[in-house]
Amino acid sequence: MNLPEKARKLDEADELRGKRAAFVLDDDTVYLDGNSLGALPTTVPGRMADVVAREWGRLRIRSWTESGWWTAPERIGDRIAPLVGAAPGQIVVGDSTSVNVFKALVGAVRMAGAERDEIVVDATTFPTDGYIAESAARMTGRRLVAVEPRELRSALGPRTAVALVNHVDYRSGRLHDLPGVTASAHAAGALVVWDLCHSAGALPVGLDAHGVDLAVGCTYKYLNGGPGSPAFLYVRRDLQAGFDSPLPGWNSHRDPFGMSPRYEAADGAPRGRVGTPDILSMLALEAALEVWDEVPIEAVRDKSLALTDFFLECVAAYVPAGRVESITPARHEERGSQVALRRADAGEVMGSLIARGVVGDFRQPDVLRFGFTPLYVSFADVERAARVLAEVISTR
Amino acid sequence: MNLPEKARKLDEADELRGKRAAFVLDDDTVYLDGNSLGALPTTVPGRMADVVAREWGRLRIRSWTESGWWTAPERIGDRIAPLVGAAPGQIVVGDSTSVNVFKALVGAVRMAGAERDEIVVDATTFPTDGYIAESAARMTGRRLVAVEPRELRSALGPRTAVALVNHVDYRSGRLHDLPGVTASAHAAGALVVWDLCHSAGALPVGLDAHGVDLAVGCTYKYLNGGPGSPAFLYVRRDLQAGFDSPLPGWNSHRDPFGMSPRYEAADGAPRGRVGTPDILSMLALEAALEVWDEVPIEAVRDKSLALTDFFLECVAAYVPAGRVESITPARHEERGSQVALRRADAGEVMGSLIARGVVGDFRQPDVLRFGFTPLYVSFADVERAARVLAEVISTR
Repeated sequence: MNLPEKARKLDEADELRGKRAAFVLDDDTVYLDGNSLGALPTTVPGRMADVVAREWGRLRIRSWTESGWWTAPERIGDRIAPLVGAAPGQIVVGDSTSVNVFKALVGAVRMAGAERDEIVVDATTFPTDGYIAESAARMTGRRLVAVEPRELRSALGPRTAVALVNHVDYRSGRLHDLPGVTASAHAAGALVVWDLCHSAGALPVGLDAHGVDLAVGCTYKYLNGGPGSPAFLYVRRDLQAGFDSPLPGWNSHRDPFGMSPRYEAADGAPRGRVGTPDILSMLALEAALEVWDEVPIEAVRDKSLALTDFFLECVAAYVPAGRVESITPARHEERGSQVALRRADAGEVMGSLIARGVVGDFRQPDVLRFGFTPLYVSFADVERAARVLAEVISTR
Repeated sequence: MNLPEKARKLDEADELRGKRAAFVLDDDTVYLDGNSLGALPTTVPGRMADVVAREWGRLRIRSWTESGWWTAPERIGDRIAPLVGAAPGQIVVGDSTSVNVFKALVGAVRMAGAERDEIVVDATTFPTDGYIAESAARMTGRRLVAVEPRELRSALGPRTAVALVNHVDYRSGRLHDLPGVTASAHAAGALVVWDLCHSAGALPVGLDAHGVDLAVGCTYKYLNGGPGSPAFLYVRRDLQAGFDSPLPGWNSHRDPFGMSPRYEAADGAPRGRVGTPDILSMLALEAALEVWDEVPIEAVRDKSLALTDFFLECVAAYVPAGRVESITPARHEERGSQVALRRADAGEVMGSLIARGVVGDFRQPDVLRFGFTPLYVSFADVERAARVLAEVISTR
């Protein structure tokens, strides 16, 4: 069976294939950049038009209560919760991932106690986590320790206050061992903050099941919330009462409209709020999340692995040996939902791919990144992407 | 001349009356809550539809460059700049006001030097500023000192690192002395951060002219950016190189896509950025700002004072003496663009007003707040609001 035919068979057997119609896509483009910006769900344009014209335009200020704007951060958090294995009441949506990393790290350091003087950060992290961790360390008088992920578990000890780890590496697509690292952190008496930007919506996370302490994630990749849609913060229920946010804005007050000069933190997930939530972006995200109704995240994971397996198979078949090197782990337990191929001229190759309708992205200095969003990427897309990649490479 | 007739004459002579058509309003409602959420500009719905359907839906990831998403924070900052008296290159849009207060205060404390150990905050401040100032003080090892605005100038001294002051008090509508307090802070060797939430878009601020150090403000009140639209941060040009943000997210890096593990701050206004900007809300704001084309802020101020004068005149004429007490200063130099009336049953009175189509808001414990947005509030609106207020009060 040739590869296009295999792709057809795989698509026919794909239980999620009906979900593609829930997104605005064009058949000219193979969109493999959903790990950077998810495609537009068809639920969003109508909802946005209504939010703007009716909720803002006609109801105006009344919408804060009548249209449920005020409670959107925790309501939408509860909608994300099952996708990352969290019971309700532990996730709040708002601010950027960077700002949430700051809240989570400072909150964790304060919970860990004064004698624990180190913040451990994944040395291969997406840069913003490292920059923010450095600021959190500086502002809490802690030492920042950068550790390669494979050495993380042995680096955690009695001095560790908290470890900040990316669940999936943004560059290589490597999936880190969340249960194992979390258990090691706890064995060392430390807390762990997981950055779920590249795993939320792509694979089961199991926050509650694995006893994760805090987590942050973005919503514009596999959750398709739209450009710069607000991030989320998870604080495990039994840690909420001790969560002492460095950004205690009025939205996290127990009685925000009491307008008291004295701060008293709200209970539960709203304690992670800061200022007035960004309603347009937040409600676009809420509409985007409708696509997940009745989609089990396990089915998403199964298809994700099948897509990346098939992409690697097609690349191996179409691209002569030695012309690209995969830096994405072959083992399923170590793979997220993307494939990263290394080539010295990756920037130029990606330019050519995009010109031919295969959209991935380029990461400095030499990485071609292809993200596979199981809700809308087909096996035919995968076969075409590998074929076009081979064509582009053969001309260079 | 009776008051309805006077209102007609004033409306006829109003140079800004044509601007009302630039907003979605209904004649049944007198909307005096633009100091909480500005009305919808007619430019927004079409722009939002295009941003969602074409920029996100069709161009997807390409829009970060091709649709100018990446540079929106500073581009929109430059659009706000003339409204607050700032030359270009000093304002960046993003995050909430609370988050920007944190950036500004910590940045200011770091510039002020280690020997200055006090952060002074306006004791009547909108609560979030006080809460965030307390966190900034705690995290920088400074002492927080709350001072009544009238005593601010004498409270600033050799220990003051920075003063955080509201330009217009959110409750009373009192306009504070920005030039005087700024000069006093500078005479004491301190910096000052102005919170412009209730003045940006309502009156001339003169940031550059008065040598203000840093400022923050929201964009959903008089700037009509939409619910929870992103806030802005001003850092005076000559202070930018020394601005050391406590939230050094990857968007504020000199070379964000270099993905370096080492943080190097960008030059200029972008140094105030943090994470990925919230594009939908940001571009709604940009469209909303089009309404300001060729509107001099001085004309806005003239009309604002005329509106609040006329409201006080109508209230005095219609409401029997002693039934409400204005806590808004009578002197123009001390008045923002709202009128606050105190009455023990203010909550119930506002409920009745809203039921009769006059929308202001209630602030604990006893304040009726009426905001006057000069771009869309007419003198006829003002007369009707005072008349309905008198009717409501007469029944109680």
